[in-house]
Amino acid sequence: MSLSLRILGCSSATPTPDRYSTAQVLNVLERFFLIDCGEGAQINMRRFGVNMLRINHIFISHVHGDHFLGLPGVLSSMSMQGRTSDLHIYCHEKLHALLDAFIGTFEMPMPYNIIYHHLTYENELTLLYEDDKVTVHSFPLRHRVPTCGFLFREKPKLRHLNGNLANELEIPISKRFGIKQGDDYTAPDGTVYPNSTLTGDPDRSCSYAFMSDTVKLTKAVPWIEGVDLLYHEATYGEDNLKRARDNNHSTAKQAAEIALAAKVGKLVIGHYSNRYKNLQPLLDEARNVFPETYLANDGALFEVK
Amino acid sequence: MSLSLRILGCSSATPTPDRYSTAQVLNVLERFFLIDCGEGAQINMRRFGVNMLRINHIFISHVHGDHFLGLPGVLSSMSMQGRTSDLHIYCHEKLHALLDAFIGTFEMPMPYNIIYHHLTYENELTLLYEDDKVTVHSFPLRHRVPTCGFLFREKPKLRHLNGNLANELEIPISKRFGIKQGDDYTAPDGTVYPNSTLTGDPDRSCSYAFMSDTVKLTKAVPWIEGVDLLYHEATYGEDNLKRARDNNHSTAKQAAEIALAAKVGKLVIGHYSNRYKNLQPLLDEARNVFPETYLANDGALFEVK
Repeated sequence: MSLSLRILGCSSATPTPDRYSTAQVLNVLERFFLIDCGEGAQINMRRFGVNMLRINHIFISHVHGDHFLGLPGVLSSMSMQGRTSDLHIYCHEKLHALLDAFIGTFEMPMPYNIIYHHLTYENELTLLYEDDKVTVHSFPLRHRVPTCGFLFREKPKLRHLNGNLANELEIPISKRFGIKQGDDYTAPDGTVYPNSTLTGDPDRSCSYAFMSDTVKLTKAVPWIEGVDLLYHEATYGEDNLKRARDNNHSTAKQAAEIALAAKVGKLVIGHYSNRYKNLQPLLDEARNVFPETYLANDGALFEVK
Repeated sequence: MSLSLRILGCSSATPTPDRYSTAQVLNVLERFFLIDCGEGAQINMRRFGVNMLRINHIFISHVHGDHFLGLPGVLSSMSMQGRTSDLHIYCHEKLHALLDAFIGTFEMPMPYNIIYHHLTYENELTLLYEDDKVTVHSFPLRHRVPTCGFLFREKPKLRHLNGNLANELEIPISKRFGIKQGDDYTAPDGTVYPNSTLTGDPDRSCSYAFMSDTVKLTKAVPWIEGVDLLYHEATYGEDNLKRARDNNHSTAKQAAEIALAAKVGKLVIGHYSNRYKNLQPLLDEARNVFPETYLANDGALFEVK
């Protein structure tokens, strides 16, 4: 399992005892990314066994309370738990200023550094994070305030070298990494072995996209095309289409239309309005368009294998 | 029932799924006072049926995260719920500045006014609030940062007029309020009826004191003497006496000693360190000194009748 998503909150606007505000932790190859951080996120981290000290990168989609009010508590608890490693926060510059004010007011001992990366809102994918195996990009959504979606991708993986054949041909260890990357192999006698005879296809690279909060945004389809897992807000059902439009939110059907157009693997909907005590109608509405739709709920785990 | 206390959170430092951070709602004669507002307070208001729109006065003991991180969410939700009436917040001036920054960053529509009252830390009871039936005072505690305790008192109540006797003597309605306040009655024929022949003792006036966070503070005893209900922090047991001292907190035994010295009616302890999964040892320790001790837990209701 190379990618898993733990939902820590799936309510819009205000948290309830059953549905906290938006927060989720994505594990990509043991890199733990916190995406949004509504009030109570640290409580649900504890409830669902998320070790907050393993989180090194936090992405905040926009500066509405239901997407960041849990962050001061997380920063404070990380401090109390003795964190010393750098923490990266990707957010609007306004939130940076507000968190600085918080930390100053707390007079909180901060045994770790926070490194802020201000989001931009260019009409394209913008690289936020990259290491040897994973990239994270932002892309603009359309909501009442500047808002970003996020795209998490494993980099293409190495091809599978046929070990028996490699040993038979006595391919030196020093050449094998290049072959896994796609090189052909030229033996000492000059014989060229095309890569395709030496290797098999690599494992799939998994990907995840987060889109909340936003209107139905067709222009985002190319940015998220083919992701294994898409989280898309579905604040309302079509019964509240006008309200969705007025508040710059989406319906479950619209979320499913985006998933269908982008040919994603699975769709997870969330960010439900409190008016929906029973979520089945939202699920039914989305599945009519995109059958591989699932409901977020607090504690739910979605895995891509 | 003239006074009741609903515990919304009783954890110290960080909230847990079972114990949110410090917050409580005191109902005195249908005036609803919010005392501290740790993260998740609005969630537990919803869980335990507290209508946040009935809260008009909020008292924040000190500017540590576990006592105020739920406040931005409460202010935001009050706005979304359409509050229009004034809200009074009694707090350190630093918190006032921080909340201003919050509201500015939110770009939150605020259909109601917030009126701030900065706490002072004089070595005495300081009147914060008064109406025809209730007073609230602050008094200084001793902690790592400036901290106040709060004292809520019903004013002395009217004496009970003997209605039958009043009718028999044909005491005019216009005189009766004065008699309930203690006046004698002089009849048209000049006969004086002493108040004690016309009235019985008034109902008791209830009172509540809140003391968290603080070291054991003997000098506070006269300020809270005789209250019906005292909430006192008991972050630790005597097994962690040194830690309590180092962190400017109290043990359960020390809380009970304050209750005993102040001759209070009942003691509620709370603000437990997360190291105490089982609270019985803290309760036992306090009851050895002051038998009328009770444990706070989230949702608990304490009534004074």
